[in-house]
This record gives sequence, structure tokens and C-alpha cells, in this order.
Amino acid sequence: MKIIRTINEMKQIVNEANNKTIGFVPTMGFLHEGHLSLVKEAKKENDFVVTSIFVNPLQFGPNEDFDEYPRDEEQDANHAKQAGVDVLFIPAMEEMYPKKMGIKIIVEEGTDVLCGRSRPGHFDGVGTVLTKLFHIVQPNNTYFGLKDAQQYAVVHHLIEQLNFPVKINGLPTVREQDGLAKSSRNVYLSDIERQEAIFLYESLQYAQKRVVDGIENPDIIIKEVTNMLQEKTSGKIDYVELLSYPALQQISTITEPIIIAIAVQFTQARLIDNILLQPNGTKIDRL
Amino acid sequence: MKIIRTINEMKQIVNEANNKTIGFVPTMGFLHEGHLSLVKEAKKENDFVVTSIFVNPLQFGPNEDFDEYPRDEEQDANHAKQAGVDVLFIPAMEEMYPKKMGIKIIVEEGTDVLCGRSRPGHFDGVGTVLTKLFHIVQPNNTYFGLKDAQQYAVVHHLIEQLNFPVKINGLPTVREQDGLAKSSRNVYLSDIERQEAIFLYESLQYAQKRVVDGIENPDIIIKEVTNMLQEKTSGKIDYVELLSYPALQQISTITEPIIIAIAVQFTQARLIDNILLQPNGTKIDRL
Repeated sequence: MKIIRTINEMKQIVNEANNKTIGFVPTMGFLHEGHLSLVKEAKKENDFVVTSIFVNPLQFGPNEDFDEYPRDEEQDANHAKQAGVDVLFIPAMEEMYPKKMGIKIIVEEGTDVLCGRSRPGHFDGVGTVLTKLFHIVQPNNTYFGLKDAQQYAVVHHLIEQLNFPVKINGLPTVREQDGLAKSSRNVYLSDIERQEAIFLYESLQYAQKRVVDGIENPDIIIKEVTNMLQEKTSGKIDYVELLSYPALQQISTITEPIIIAIAVQFTQARLIDNILLQPNGTKIDRL
Repeated sequence: MKIIRTINEMKQIVNEANNKTIGFVPTMGFLHEGHLSLVKEAKKENDFVVTSIFVNPLQFGPNEDFDEYPRDEEQDANHAKQAGVDVLFIPAMEEMYPKKMGIKIIVEEGTDVLCGRSRPGHFDGVGTVLTKLFHIVQPNNTYFGLKDAQQYAVVHHLIEQLNFPVKINGLPTVREQDGLAKSSRNVYLSDIERQEAIFLYESLQYAQKRVVDGIENPDIIIKEVTNMLQEKTSGKIDYVELLSYPALQQISTITEPIIIAIAVQFTQARLIDNILLQPNGTKIDRL
């Protein structure tokens, strides 16, 4: 595995790749099983895999944890190598933003719902850094986890509306045995909260069952999921939303693919989870 | 020469081009000698040349002439073929913007000077459509005329700051025998105005001479050019500006490459012209 730190070297490797297909997994590092499942899938479907590690300041708000965001380059390099990464691209800040950006990507669609509502400008920063990274790495395929379903949806819009020559792939949320979505934040749960946390996914599975049963009114589903979370967990519900997917629009009847997404604040950890469904309730695992 | 109207067909041609180099000349059609000089240069430097014709609504203001913008596809196709275009890409509006864009490119640098000052949002529209076109055509080289020096500068920023894998080339302004910059608008000049119009370029050449003489204070040059234009033409001066280039910043001393740019409103035609100089006064013809 090569570790590359400059844009010029990265572009040179891409130019020399010629007719090989490139799979790209952009990350902010601190790689866990979720990232590595993306790498493994990318490895299967492409001639070689580039993973980037860049903690992108543009996507952090003024009160967010950019400085405290966890970094462990040595461990990341080990994980990446084992998972099959061919090129690990780790540009420094000055390499990606040598001066104040005079050009910006603004994402106006699908950002005022779910987690985006409380993070104004977050997806502009995501769009800007991904535009740069896609131009540098020139991948055929790029891979995102569906755990962050809003991010997948926004990147899907970005690629589609700006005609990037890149195919986006959304891969299933990686879960613990009991269904809890894997997250580096799970370690901050108390023992009791960890027991309760399984009800995030349980409530989503119950919602799926209700859609299969033929419930077409989003309000009913939202209410039932909210009730279950309130009953079964001590966490504070941040949101329970049911939206069209990937357009992320409010709907009054379930007649197209949907997302049901939840966020629950526990004492030390805010957990998110979601499920994607066809209008008949069939689960969508991969996009 | 192939005429292509869909993005999918255009992308397919690009994919099949493999290791051939692609030169790209984006235009809004109504091709004249200026455009064709770009095509001819692109032809020399690349294996094949794509020219696009798309009158981009996003770069027109609400009071500008989008509907009246001249269009003549048949004549354009003839000109393009003769100049050596291999693929003429003419997408319809619905092909480029099938729905309202939820993603935008915002250009914050180099837009509040020269012609951009009176066209808010113009370069956002230029940046957005070029991003789409670069992704569709995937050129190695793209060609712009230096007559529209601000556009060249903005596209230069766009490519540099977003790391597009594209090299931008700026080609010399094409001029009449007497030095007047070629423009489709020249036909709207009266006979007397046409005589006067040569003083646009004459004043710029005089400015060059003054920089060669060692004048380092922009204000002196601006004043002398303004005086000459006022004396020698009946037009109304819109602006005379001297800025760093391509950053387009105000400067107090000439110590880096500069642009001296002018715009003069005649009865029926607004003419623009410019000259690019090294700090010692040497003319920059190509970028």
C-alpha cells in the first residue's frame, strides 16, 4: 500500500492507471468496520482502491469538534492495508486549501431535514471537498455507507446534477449481533443505555412491518416509532422522520422509496439509525 | 463531424476515446473568428476537438438578453466543421437542466470588478455550466479567448481551486487590421464610431508603453487611458481598470502581471478590450 500526501503525486498515479478501474472511499480517518466494509466492496468491484483521510474543516460548524475530531494515522494505515487499500491519500490542510477558497459548492436540496437541519453549511463543505477529491482521484466508483443516509443522498444529487463521471454506491449499515448500528460513539453508552439502544433498530424494523402491513400514512408510522423509543429508552428523541428517498422530501402517502430515520441523544452519545424501504415495505440494503 | 445532443452519447464518445487527448472549446454558439481560432489551436494540440453550443440561462441576469441571444445552428455547424471540430455537442435545455438545480457553484473571487460588477451571479452560472460540461466532456485541455479576460481568470480559479484535471489555455484576442478587437457587436457601430473605436486598443498600447517607460503607479495609467478615450471617442466610458492578473485584485504598484481593461458604451454597442502585461510592460499574448 502506498501512502500519498500530495495532490500532484496522487494525480500522477491516476494518470498512470490508464484503463484500470478506480474505486474510491473518502473518509475522515479513525477507520472502523463500517469504512472497511466499503473498502472491501470497492476492492471486489475495481482494479484498485484509493482511500482518502482528510478531516475537512469546511464541513464543521463554528461550535463543532474539528480540533477534537479523533485522529490516529498509524492505526488507520494498518487497517487500510489489511482491508486491501492500494493507495492511502492523506493530504495536509495546506495541500487541500492552500488559500481561502474563492469558489464554493452550495447544496440547496435535501439539507434542511434530518441531521442537516442543525448543521447549516455542513453539506456545502462536504460537496466542496468531495468535488476536489473526485477531481484528484478520478474514480469510476465511489462508496458511502447508508448509515449516513442523508450524506449518501446529497452526494447522489451532487454527482447527478453536476454530471460527475462517477458511480456512487451506497452500502448497508454494519450492525452488531443485536442489530445496533456500529459507531465509534457506542462506547460512550452506559451499560443500561447500551441495552436500550437496540430499540433504535427494533423500532425501525417495527416501522418496516407496519409499511408491509399496508400503512400508507407517514404520520402513523412516525407516531408509533416515537412512542416505542420513548417507552423503551431513556434517551431524548432528536428526530423521527419519514421522507422520500433519495429526494428527502416530505410526503403525505407512501408511494415511492422512503427513509425512516431517527436520532436519539443519550447521556454521552447521540445515536442515529435509519431504514430504507420500497413503498411495499421491502428493505433496500444497497444503492 | 458528429453532432451530439445527449449527455449519455457524449459521455460514451469520451469513454471510447481512451488514451486520445481531448481539446474542448465551450461556446454559446453564433461562432465567429474568435471561437474558430480557439478550435484551430485545440486541433493542433489534441487528438480530437469537442465544441459545445449551449446558451446557458444560469449566466443571464433577469434583465439580460437570454431570449434574444442570437442563435444559428446551421451556420455554426458549417463553421465548426470547417475549423476542424470533431464533435459538436448541442444539448437542449432539458438535457442540461432536467430540473431546478439543487447544487450550485458560487464564485466569490474576482467577480466584483470589470464586467462582473454589473452582472451579479453571472460567474456562478458560468462556473456551474462549465463544471457540468467539464464532467461530461472530460477534456485534457480547454480553450478560452483572452478578450474576455475576466472569464478566463474565473475559469482559471475554478479549475485550480477545485482541482479539475483540465489544463486551461488562454488565446490571444483576434483583431481587425487596425487593431479593433473582433466582436459580433462591431456591426452596430456607426461609421464615425467605427473610426473612433480603434482608440480602445490604441489607448491600451499607449498604456503598455507607459509601463515599459517605468510608470509603476496604476492611477497614472488609468488617468491617461481615460483621458485618451474621452478625447478620441464619443462613447461613454463604463470602466478603465488596472488589476493584478489573474487574481483581479486592486494593486498600488505594478510589481506582478496585470490587466488593463476598458469598456466603452457607444450608441448601439458596448465594446470591451484589454491588454495583459508583465510588470516590465512585456505583452502577454497567451496563457
